[in-house]
Formats: sequence, C-alpha cells, structure tokens
Amino acid sequence: MTKIRLFTPGPTGVPEEVLLEMARPIFHHRTGQYRDFLKQLTQGLQYVFRTNNEVLTFTGSGTSAMEAGIVCCLAPGAKALVVRGGKFGQRWAEVCTAYGLDHINIDVEWSRAVDPAVIEKALADDPAIKAVIVTHSETSTGVRSDVEAIGKIVAPTEALFMVDCITSAAAIPLEVDKWSIDVAATGSQKALMLPPGLAFLAVSPKAWKIAKSFQPKAYYLDIKRYRKSLKTWDNPYTPAITLVRGLAKALEMIKAEGLENIWARTAKIAQATRQAALAMGLKLFAADPVDSLTSICYPQGVDDKQFRSLLREKFGIWVAGGQADLSGKIFRISHMGYVDALDAVSVIAAIEQALNACGHKVIPGTGTGKALEILAS
Amino acid sequence: MTKIRLFTPGPTGVPEEVLLEMARPIFHHRTGQYRDFLKQLTQGLQYVFRTNNEVLTFTGSGTSAMEAGIVCCLAPGAKALVVRGGKFGQRWAEVCTAYGLDHINIDVEWSRAVDPAVIEKALADDPAIKAVIVTHSETSTGVRSDVEAIGKIVAPTEALFMVDCITSAAAIPLEVDKWSIDVAATGSQKALMLPPGLAFLAVSPKAWKIAKSFQPKAYYLDIKRYRKSLKTWDNPYTPAITLVRGLAKALEMIKAEGLENIWARTAKIAQATRQAALAMGLKLFAADPVDSLTSICYPQGVDDKQFRSLLREKFGIWVAGGQADLSGKIFRISHMGYVDALDAVSVIAAIEQALNACGHKVIPGTGTGKALEILAS
Repeated sequence: MTKIRLFTPGPTGVPEEVLLEMARPIFHHRTGQYRDFLKQLTQGLQYVFRTNNEVLTFTGSGTSAMEAGIVCCLAPGAKALVVRGGKFGQRWAEVCTAYGLDHINIDVEWSRAVDPAVIEKALADDPAIKAVIVTHSETSTGVRSDVEAIGKIVAPTEALFMVDCITSAAAIPLEVDKWSIDVAATGSQKALMLPPGLAFLAVSPKAWKIAKSFQPKAYYLDIKRYRKSLKTWDNPYTPAITLVRGLAKALEMIKAEGLENIWARTAKIAQATRQAALAMGLKLFAADPVDSLTSICYPQGVDDKQFRSLLREKFGIWVAGGQADLSGKIFRISHMGYVDALDAVSVIAAIEQALNACGHKVIPGTGTGKALEILAS
Repeated sequence: MTKIRLFTPGPTGVPEEVLLEMARPIFHHRTGQYRDFLKQLTQGLQYVFRTNNEVLTFTGSGTSAMEAGIVCCLAPGAKALVVRGGKFGQRWAEVCTAYGLDHINIDVEWSRAVDPAVIEKALADDPAIKAVIVTHSETSTGVRSDVEAIGKIVAPTEALFMVDCITSAAAIPLEVDKWSIDVAATGSQKALMLPPGLAFLAVSPKAWKIAKSFQPKAYYLDIKRYRKSLKTWDNPYTPAITLVRGLAKALEMIKAEGLENIWARTAKIAQATRQAALAMGLKLFAADPVDSLTSICYPQGVDDKQFRSLLREKFGIWVAGGQADLSGKIFRISHMGYVDALDAVSVIAAIEQALNACGHKVIPGTGTGKALEILAS
C-alpha cells in the first residue's frame, strides 16, 4: 500500500470533509440555499483577503479571474506595467498582448523579486501607466514579491495595483486593504483546499471607478455582470455549485484554525523544508523565497524524471518539476492548505531516500532531523 | 420526509455514482491519469455530439464555451446573423455587442422556432454574414429550432454555423457532422448529468480555418490554446479535475444506455408530460416544442410563486419559472439526463395536487393517468 500525497503547488490535497460535502445532492443555484452558500463564501473570502472590497466568484481557473481584472480595469488607451519574474508574470503580459493592451514589461531574474524602486521609477517616468501588475507568489519559481512595499508606491498614483495572489491567499500574510491592492485574484485549488474550478477577484472602489467607465471586450469575464448579481448573492452564469458548497466548508475550517495560525503553520513548514534541503546539501532556487512553496535545485547528476518518478512510485509523493527554462533544473514542494507538520516530514523523508537512490548521498535522518528540530521549536 | 427531485432545466439531478466518483481523492492534472480521463471524456463527447471534430473542454458555464466559439471564429470585419427567440438567443447577441462584433438579429416570437427560409434570405441578401448563430433548444421557452434544415442552408455558404446545443446535446437528436454544425457548444449540468462547471465546444475544420486567421480578443477563452493542449490530452489552464472525473463516469453511463435510447426515453417522457398537461386543462407554451423540457402556461388565477413553492415545500419538486417577459406566465419541467418514466409520473402527480390547491381543479389521476398511458405505449 502506498498512500497518495499531493505536494504540487496546485492542485493541493483536499480534506475528506470537503470531498464528501461536494458529494451531497446537487441543488439549484437560483435559490435561498445557494445564496446562503455564496454569501458565506464571499464573506469568507473577504476574511482571507483581509478586505472589505467586493469579492467576485468565477467558474474558471485562476487565470480567468486575473484576466477579468486586467481586461475590465484597464481602460482604452491606458498602459500596464507588468512584472515578469516567472511563468505567471509572463502570462499576464500575454493576456495584455492577446487583447492588444498597451504594456511595458519589467523583466526580473527568475530567482529574485522585483525591486520596488524599479516600479517607482517606471511610474514616475511614464504617467500613461494606469496599472501595475505583480505576482505575489510566483508559483513557477517560489519567489515572493514585496507587495506591501509596492502597494505604498502605487497607492498615491492614479494607477491600479493588480496582484496575482493565486498561491499567496490563505498561505502567507496578505492584506488587500492595508496594502492598497485594487485587484486581487486567487483560485480554489491552492491554499483554499478545494479542487480546481473556482476563481475569485477582490475589486477596490478605485478599480470599480475605472471599470464603470468603459465596456470591456468581455462577457463571461465582465466583472460588472458579477457585481450586479452579487447584490442578490447570485452569479450571472450557472456557477460550479458543488465547488461553491465545498468552499463554504473549507472556509469554515480556515476560520476555525484562524488565518494567522495558518500563515504561521505554513511559514514554519516552509522554514523546516528549506533548512532540511540545505542540511541535505541541496541549494535553494529562490533568493527571495515565498513560504507557499519551496523550489529546490537538483544537485549535479540527479535526474528530474528519475527523481520524481521514484517519489511517486515508491512513496506516492507528488512534487512538481520546473516550468519553461527551469524544467529539469528544480523541483517544487507545496506547503499550502491541507498540510501539517508530519506531512512536511514525510516529504523530506521521501526526498532523502530518493536522493540516495539517484546518487546524491544523504545520511538517513539528516533532512528529517533538521525538519523536526525546526518544527518542534 | 420529502425527497428533493430536481426538474429544473439545468442544473439537473446527478446520479449518486457520479457524485461519489467526484468525491474520490484529488489528483494532479499534468499526469497520465488525467490525460486518460480527458481522452475518455473527449471521445465520449464526440459520441454525444456525433462528430469527428475536436471537442474542447472549458472550465466555465455553457455561456463561456459559446462565447469562445463566437469570439474566436468571427474574424474582424465579419458579420453574424443571430436568431433571438428567447433569453439565450438574446445572450449571443449581447456577446456580439460586448465585443463590438457586427451582427444582425432575427427576432422570432418566443413560442416559435425560426423559419429557415428567413435565414436563407438573409444570407442571400448580405454576403458579409460569416456566421449564423442559432439556439437548438431554447431553454427559456422550450422551443426547438430545425437545426438540420438550417444546416443545409448554411453549409454551402462561406458562413459558419454556430449552434447553442446546451440543452439539446444528449437529450434530443443532434448530428453535428451530418448537419454541418461548425461550432457546437454544450454544458455539463444538463443532459450530461453532471453538476455545472464544465463546458464543451466542438469545432469543425471550416471553423478552425477562420480561427487560425486572426488573434481574437481572448486568452482564457482562446480556442487555439485549448486545441494545442488537446494534442497531448491536456488543458491550457488548470481544469476542474473532479468534474472531469465525474463526467468520464457519466459518459460511461450514457454509452451503456446508448444515445438513441436516451433520445427515445427523453422524447417519450416529453410526450407524456405534454399530453398530461393538456389532459389537466393546461396550455402548452411552445408551438414548436423541444423534448428536453416542457414549458406550460399557467391557467387563469394560478400564481407562479404559490404554485412552485407548493411543489417545493410539499413534494420536494423543483421546476423552473419563466424568464424575462415570461416570468409568472409559464413554468418549465426538465426531461434531461437522470430522469426515468416514474420520475416523470411523480412530477405530474405533484402538479395535479398543486394545481388543485391553487384553484385550478383537476380530478386526481387525470394527468398521471394520461402520462402512464403514453409511457406504457
């Protein structure tokens, strides 16, 4: 017997309680029952985002919500500043290109976070910039951007601050209101402990003012339609009802644990994982690491395919490889959502063994010992 | 005890086997396991659509798939002809408006199907028309359009034939290839017996030729991205994995029963419902009825709210009211998906009682007797 343990940075493991909640009989969405779930879910997401802004629920991937924010809040003639420090930063630039939206890219080394001063200078140099698009937690690299610092720079300007919080929300400190984030997107299959299929967007009054001023090239992703429906706790199009029901349950669990406690748990597990990796003679990829996931460089001679198949086949452990240019060079371990301290130790234990089998010698207990030491502290 | 019986024309009831399938542990989507499911699902949808065209899977509502088809297959400068015979026909015109796509609307009385000759004339009069957009089963009215006849008219022209098959696929005869449908959309929560959250689009070679010729204002809904991923049985964005797994199961059930048998079952239940309604002294709303659902006019004095609450509260039966101008005037009963003959009799039985309670006198057994007579024939 080998249990399956999902440590990919999305989808992540889903608690059994949530899976069973979603297996309950289907019901109609134009009903009080659904409205109660959507209300509970919306308020729960406001708790997670730390915001009083309206939070919209889309049936789609995280990309759909972020795209909705970009397309509906970048008025004709406005220019976006896009930070590209990984695959997801690249994606937001691709969205601008697809819609023919004017944008400037700030390219950042993939292991590093953007320097907020670069954004400050760009904004000062070009008053046509009406949106700054940043990825809080770059899932492809494991890097955290200093969204708080960037928020302070963007807030006093006319520009909107749009942040991809897909793998940061409910995993690491995120303060949508305090940090003046105008458009914040996340998805269901990360720290929210749900299967994929839902995506969320918190929209500030500053962003609504822009959104109301023009008709975007959008219908399914038109945020104004979602806002209108939300007034009666409704969706404009038929929503993924079972996932909405499941998320209401997952948010109950999140509230019961408490957001700060979740942040602390995730941070502790991330720290234990990083220190264990170093103890095993591995190099960390991210110079500015995010606690949602850890990206680790393969040591000389260890083959990505062999290593990850061994983890899967021998231990049932799923971690992710590198994406794009990082393919074969790094692997990534998620710490988001339904992961406790012993789960974290299990991954390290399996990695110790797989590294040995792949030719990188580690004395058994080196990684797990270090992890336990930190987790116990 | 009152069992909940969902007879709304979407969402529809989901078989217990499918609900439990979706409660199984989550797994990653960039894996052989997922690819097997997507392959099975795609081939199953080709079976349902009766097509060899590629079928794309979106995480979204039926609207998202239809919008993807319209936006990605209507080249700049092309004009669409949109049949508006109900709320969904109106929606496709709204999509065109949102994107600034040139279009002509053919307005049809809401109880009737479009006359194919009107489409023939419009195409002959205006060679700029490059797409004909028709709703096969108008869920808001219960009307069926003669898609086969329209297909014969559109096929020899340059125009693409785009059909909303959201409540026709897997419910009534639909022949995407034989009827020359270039873009056919459907959703998961209708005759496919799944909760909402997935939508599908079958795209013909004729449509791909147009789609390849330009960059649409789309990213999440860009069909070319889905086509590229489909070559390796993948999705471009994280898909609703649990729903994909559930649909593979539902399609297994659909294949086991056989599509023609499903069409026949649905038609028989629709006929029984219509005849029972007439026997109870009710008027049918649709002059050209579709077998996916039955729309029935309220008799004088019967109040929509009172009637439907009674059905819900006393019998656990959910039917839908009228939409837009039809609100308060009709109610709609779904025959799609997981509905057998005795289910159909149960709805009629509850309606008989509710009508009596609302002041429209029916001798008990009048409707059910007629329904049973037809179901047994």
